[in-house]
Amino acid sequence: MFAGLANTSVQAGNPLNAEESDPKRLDWMTGFPPPPEKLIMQPESDFFSFPKLRWTVCHIRELMPTKLVSRGIGPSVPLEYEIDDGIDAVTFKPMGGGKPMTWKESLSANYTDGILIIHKGRVVYEKFFGCLDEMGKHAAMSMTKSITGLLAEILVVEGRLDDTVKVSSIIPELKDSAFGSATVRQVMDMTTALDYSEDYSDPKADIWVYSKAASPLPKPRGYEGPNGYFEYLQTVKQDGVHGEAFGYRTINTDALGWIISRVTGKDLAHLLSERIWSRMGTEQDGYMTVDAKGTPFAGGGLSAGLRDLGRLGLLMLNCGKINGQRLFPKEVMENIRAGGDKKAFAKAGYKTLKGGSYRSMWWLFHNNHGAFAARGVHGQTIYVDPTAEMVIVRFASFPTAKNAQIDPTSLPAYQAVAKYLMKE
Amino acid sequence: MFAGLANTSVQAGNPLNAEESDPKRLDWMTGFPPPPEKLIMQPESDFFSFPKLRWTVCHIRELMPTKLVSRGIGPSVPLEYEIDDGIDAVTFKPMGGGKPMTWKESLSANYTDGILIIHKGRVVYEKFFGCLDEMGKHAAMSMTKSITGLLAEILVVEGRLDDTVKVSSIIPELKDSAFGSATVRQVMDMTTALDYSEDYSDPKADIWVYSKAASPLPKPRGYEGPNGYFEYLQTVKQDGVHGEAFGYRTINTDALGWIISRVTGKDLAHLLSERIWSRMGTEQDGYMTVDAKGTPFAGGGLSAGLRDLGRLGLLMLNCGKINGQRLFPKEVMENIRAGGDKKAFAKAGYKTLKGGSYRSMWWLFHNNHGAFAARGVHGQTIYVDPTAEMVIVRFASFPTAKNAQIDPTSLPAYQAVAKYLMKE
Repeated sequence: MFAGLANTSVQAGNPLNAEESDPKRLDWMTGFPPPPEKLIMQPESDFFSFPKLRWTVCHIRELMPTKLVSRGIGPSVPLEYEIDDGIDAVTFKPMGGGKPMTWKESLSANYTDGILIIHKGRVVYEKFFGCLDEMGKHAAMSMTKSITGLLAEILVVEGRLDDTVKVSSIIPELKDSAFGSATVRQVMDMTTALDYSEDYSDPKADIWVYSKAASPLPKPRGYEGPNGYFEYLQTVKQDGVHGEAFGYRTINTDALGWIISRVTGKDLAHLLSERIWSRMGTEQDGYMTVDAKGTPFAGGGLSAGLRDLGRLGLLMLNCGKINGQRLFPKEVMENIRAGGDKKAFAKAGYKTLKGGSYRSMWWLFHNNHGAFAARGVHGQTIYVDPTAEMVIVRFASFPTAKNAQIDPTSLPAYQAVAKYLMKE
Repeated sequence: MFAGLANTSVQAGNPLNAEESDPKRLDWMTGFPPPPEKLIMQPESDFFSFPKLRWTVCHIRELMPTKLVSRGIGPSVPLEYEIDDGIDAVTFKPMGGGKPMTWKESLSANYTDGILIIHKGRVVYEKFFGCLDEMGKHAAMSMTKSITGLLAEILVVEGRLDDTVKVSSIIPELKDSAFGSATVRQVMDMTTALDYSEDYSDPKADIWVYSKAASPLPKPRGYEGPNGYFEYLQTVKQDGVHGEAFGYRTINTDALGWIISRVTGKDLAHLLSERIWSRMGTEQDGYMTVDAKGTPFAGGGLSAGLRDLGRLGLLMLNCGKINGQRLFPKEVMENIRAGGDKKAFAKAGYKTLKGGSYRSMWWLFHNNHGAFAARGVHGQTIYVDPTAEMVIVRFASFPTAKNAQIDPTSLPAYQAVAKYLMKE
């Protein structure tokens, strides 16, 4: 599954900049047929390598099976616009030094594909670049986790999911795995202790076994490993004591997806449509990638439109209300915004997220604005700043996966825009 | 390429009836995970076998890569309703004898998944069964051909495509294939003379080579055959003289799709969205399956909502107008409704379609109502009766592929409903 391979896109040397690597400029998949050097095809080690990934992030469904996240068939509720041309000139200092940069410059530095700023309920900034336009969808990558976490938190508040019980009491199949002895909350906050390596340079690393299991393509002849997320999760062993340290592992979200489906009787794409996507005036359907047995990829499979993730951000900002309708109790947001275990989080050593925490698969900055975010590799984010009444959504295709390289020119930029908007 | 394997779904003995084979009743893909006997997965020889195909026809995208046919992001234009409860009791005599049957009985006899009747611009009948509901999409199978043919005919009338020239003048890569020496019109009307066998019992039949080439899955190691529709088409040899006989071969439509894309610079899914799907008040996005290089399957890849194919039927009935807007010149419909070469058609020996013809990938009945249709295996149809001002759309999952088995309880039923509606 492509998320697992995200780090293989790291290139030696200096990659092309945003303009040089613009997928339109590089003519990917153009012509009938496209010339061989312009084709983007399976396998994922090719289609998710930079600069090809800058095309792929908008075309996931053309490369693998997917499941609809339906918006329904009713009318959408248009966002209100009040564009503020002053934002481009907002200046900020990148983290860790470096010379001041304007907001506009930061978009290109971060290989932005789509950026939306909503302030006090109105869109004040919206731009599309690269492969994306207003009718396009973009891979949300690990922002999917936050949506899975939101659904779980809703179920907890509704009393349909007890986050204090052991996972094995809900999913007996996970009894002998590391997840079995963890609580639902530990899975939701990723404080499980898992014997799971994401060392991409080690061909025996667990990530490769996981990737093979998760692939939606038919298994090669003679393959005897696990098939699908559910089978893989049963093989994961414990390493250490649950609850002591934050360990960012996608498989926690896959386990949470399983828990949610077992509790509700609905697959994640269906539940997301029913509870959120069909009820927030959404403009476009979304979709999720699936494994070979049709299980949606809870940890990273969503693709969606920029504005629709803006609607999701508004829903979070307004504690469960959008377009005058309440979709979930405000306690859901209180629980998430209270944050996770800061000490457990600190052990993970995120340099750009000091003092933060992780709760129900959302990232809490614990800054003086109470900001929190959904985040995904290569620069995806929904950044919610309650104090500034601001939501920023960014889709991007940064050459390298890790957000630690994008944060220095993103997080201070968000804070600078928040300050700018609050002064108006 | 599932369409190529449609005939493998024929079962020995009596298949389950519509109620017994209802995919909801058979619990396909339910549970987390579904038990092994309820899983529907690749390969297509399994997922497109009856009764599994009754689930699969609504879930194509979950089994293979697909390309969006966008409806855009504007509001849809709701269909008007004036339901006529009398239709269920309309009685007709099946072709070739058999006792009289009611319309309602025929729905079950034909394993109907969705049925829509529009009369004088209003929906008078709408039912969903099996895997389908108002928010679902269903495989259109070879009805896709008629849409490809419509797009080609539009280009012809607009003067952007000359149907009298040899295909090789537009696609030089097809020069040495059977298509190279055929005219565009011969491809559009399927009177090309192709050395192409669809004998499913012969393991060396061309259909198998085509299926392998068309599969969106990565090719097996050591595979040296053609990859994708475009490469396959170049290998097809001529057998006989073009223009003499109608020969229903899906590969004609794939060649036409290539011609359309070369002429317009747009892939078929994109062009269909731009010219039709985004302009007729469509309710849902559609999608098309693709080969491993992203080429949409012009000959059978579309999945769409029932009502949206109703809108397409209305567009055809009203000669290019819908919702007060003209999407293409009325000459397009005049050309199609004039029909193709009846003598050439007669040579193909369709027992249920005597006196008919095939024009621009539409089936003309040449009956006294001037009816014509898009048709796809397992019972798919858009049936347009201009005299009765009636459009019928049926999605179905009949156990066997060939419509010759469905026509006896379908075509007379359509005619009986037309007569019933005209008397009102």
